[in-house]
Amino acid sequence: MGCGLLVFHPKFSSSIEPPPSVNDRWTSCLEFPLEESVVEELSWIQDGTRSVTVLLVTVRFFRENFSVSAFSFHLDAVDPRTGARVGRLETPHGVVETPAFMPVGTLATVKGLTPEQLQRAGAQMLLANTYHLALRPTSDVVAELGGLHKFMNWDGPILTDSGGFQVFSLASSRKIDDDKVVFRSHIDGSLLELSPERAVLIQEQLGADIIMCLDECPAHDASPEKMTAAVNRTTHWAARCREAQKRTDQLLFGIVQGGTSKSLRELSAKGLLPLNFPGYAVGGLSVGEEPSAMYTTLEFTIPLLPSDRPRYLMGVGRPIDILEGVLRGVDLFDCVMPTRNGRNAMAFTSQGGLKLRNLKYRTDPSPLDPDCDCQVCRQFSRAYLRHLFIAGEMLGPILLSWHNIAYYQRMLRDLRDAIRQGKATEFREAQMRRSK
Amino acid sequence: MGCGLLVFHPKFSSSIEPPPSVNDRWTSCLEFPLEESVVEELSWIQDGTRSVTVLLVTVRFFRENFSVSAFSFHLDAVDPRTGARVGRLETPHGVVETPAFMPVGTLATVKGLTPEQLQRAGAQMLLANTYHLALRPTSDVVAELGGLHKFMNWDGPILTDSGGFQVFSLASSRKIDDDKVVFRSHIDGSLLELSPERAVLIQEQLGADIIMCLDECPAHDASPEKMTAAVNRTTHWAARCREAQKRTDQLLFGIVQGGTSKSLRELSAKGLLPLNFPGYAVGGLSVGEEPSAMYTTLEFTIPLLPSDRPRYLMGVGRPIDILEGVLRGVDLFDCVMPTRNGRNAMAFTSQGGLKLRNLKYRTDPSPLDPDCDCQVCRQFSRAYLRHLFIAGEMLGPILLSWHNIAYYQRMLRDLRDAIRQGKATEFREAQMRRSK
Repeated sequence: MGCGLLVFHPKFSSSIEPPPSVNDRWTSCLEFPLEESVVEELSWIQDGTRSVTVLLVTVRFFRENFSVSAFSFHLDAVDPRTGARVGRLETPHGVVETPAFMPVGTLATVKGLTPEQLQRAGAQMLLANTYHLALRPTSDVVAELGGLHKFMNWDGPILTDSGGFQVFSLASSRKIDDDKVVFRSHIDGSLLELSPERAVLIQEQLGADIIMCLDECPAHDASPEKMTAAVNRTTHWAARCREAQKRTDQLLFGIVQGGTSKSLRELSAKGLLPLNFPGYAVGGLSVGEEPSAMYTTLEFTIPLLPSDRPRYLMGVGRPIDILEGVLRGVDLFDCVMPTRNGRNAMAFTSQGGLKLRNLKYRTDPSPLDPDCDCQVCRQFSRAYLRHLFIAGEMLGPILLSWHNIAYYQRMLRDLRDAIRQGKATEFREAQMRRSK
Repeated sequence: MGCGLLVFHPKFSSSIEPPPSVNDRWTSCLEFPLEESVVEELSWIQDGTRSVTVLLVTVRFFRENFSVSAFSFHLDAVDPRTGARVGRLETPHGVVETPAFMPVGTLATVKGLTPEQLQRAGAQMLLANTYHLALRPTSDVVAELGGLHKFMNWDGPILTDSGGFQVFSLASSRKIDDDKVVFRSHIDGSLLELSPERAVLIQEQLGADIIMCLDECPAHDASPEKMTAAVNRTTHWAARCREAQKRTDQLLFGIVQGGTSKSLRELSAKGLLPLNFPGYAVGGLSVGEEPSAMYTTLEFTIPLLPSDRPRYLMGVGRPIDILEGVLRGVDLFDCVMPTRNGRNAMAFTSQGGLKLRNLKYRTDPSPLDPDCDCQVCRQFSRAYLRHLFIAGEMLGPILLSWHNIAYYQRMLRDLRDAIRQGKATEFREAQMRRSK
């Protein structure tokens, strides 16, 4: 545990060179395993008007070369026409090929599926919801059991949201001020609070690879004043989250807010960029606005973000939204749609949506999607799957969720290939034609 | 399709030698694949007061050597002290090592589990319910889709019950006479009927490896007159089922009724044995009587059945009931208990039952059963499984059903080993000690 790792304090890291005196440590540091216990302040180094804390921890990031021990993000290909890009996000729990779709495992389980089934469906990275886990089983319990990965037996990368979105959409008696938000649990009505510091603490207890800043996500039709206030609060909270972060083996992403307003998105990005986050999310979309408004917002928001960091479009979405997002430079997506629709007997296929309760599938021996090679399509007929739903059997939701996740993952895989071949636009056109 | 298979008509086969003139065919016949289409009557052969039909089909059975092409039953070991036995039941869909426990896949799905998970839990053979499948999706639909095996994607052996038990326990407005039973569907109230012939027809459409005669199963406290009538009707119906059977790639089992009465069980067996079924079930137990009454009934019923045919105790049961049944010479069991209890957060373990909702498992990092090597015990903690149930997540019932089936299968596997080593009684004692 002697260690030799270095960290440059986020607040001051943007223009700092590694001090020559610690270069030896610098070069050796990346070989050490990450351990929370090695955090120890060494000294202050003055550098003109700035100062930097050297810690016995890890290289969190250094100038524009975002590179954290065990983390890295490399772009393999960028489509010159659209900005669509293919990359590799390395995390302590493995590599995510981007653009990537994260299935949602709200309560440390993607509903109805084992981790193995998720892996076989092609899922690389999962999302879990901080708000839900903080209520049940609580982050203390997850931490005591070794963190989310061990708890749910998912060895791959995980991202947790901050809990903010659920506080604003699920909880009742919500009272927000600049310090924190106080609310009542949607389960038992108990009074709880969430501050930037607490959101980070909970996410550090959960132990995901990527964690999110607490943000304020107003309704899409909120007044300009409310939107502006939310942007400013989100910026303020982002700095506090940055400050609060203790663990060095997690990436903390900032979240750009601002609804569909170009000036507010610019204001938000301008506030966040000096904090030099290793990745940025676009929040406050897919909350009721028209799809075209979402696409336009992405067109002026994505270019505001550093091109060498992953970009995450939160809570999106339909396959078409993901395609449009990727073509505007987004790298990460999450949505409950494949699993929620799967539980409701709706399958995504290369020919469009398929409502499995329909009588016409009663004796249909064909697979859900003739173009799909997932375990479900290889093993079961539409007729059997329909029977499971009509009879109210659990296996119906299970198998359809499995297929739908596999559908999303295959679409992203094919899309990555298309981007590499410079055919991102053609891929979108073909996908839209087929699913009509 | 020239074929050379022979069948001796069941009604006359009990004391017949193969006619010398067809001995060549006899020896070659077992190499032909079974095809329904090869059924063709060849000739009548007179043999003193009896006659036998020679058909171009298959050797269904011949005297005491029960042997059907693609089917066979061999005993590997019999415990001289108890009569517990280890055997191999070969079916067109693979071998079942007996004693065996069949998980119940009522509607062509063992609730919440994929066929692959069942296989990994060690399940060799499944049971499906004719009554339920006849209502949804109907046997016509299953037949059109290639039969149960293909429909549910289970390549292993399947047994279907006759539907009688559910008609007597689930359906309403039941009216029974010697010809048939008329009843109303428990789903939509529609008027339906089940006769011995229809029960066989439906099961032939479903296409299981083992099918059951339609029987009448009275309440355990029915009057002696009612019990006697049920026995006689069951015998009468068994002959009609025998007669109705057309498919040659399914074994039809007779069902001994008679409640807990020795004389009625004798009456039932006496009526069924001349029909020379390739296997016999004991029905009418585990329907409310005391366990000790069930064990006593088995003690005087099992010896009435031919020792070279498989014996199946229907709808049983608790692990202890299975142990007691095996020690009395039973080969096959089925019960919803592992899956139903699993869905209700109750796990079977080598240390006894475990109610997973209990607060004491909140942060328990240990597996459900430290002695279990199933996928669930290798991957998940009690704390995680408890969390899934408390949060109402589908994965809880799925994983507990999986473990419970694996528990049953492991118990049977260990029991088979114990019988081979002449330690069946010791196994039961050890099992009872451990689970106290």
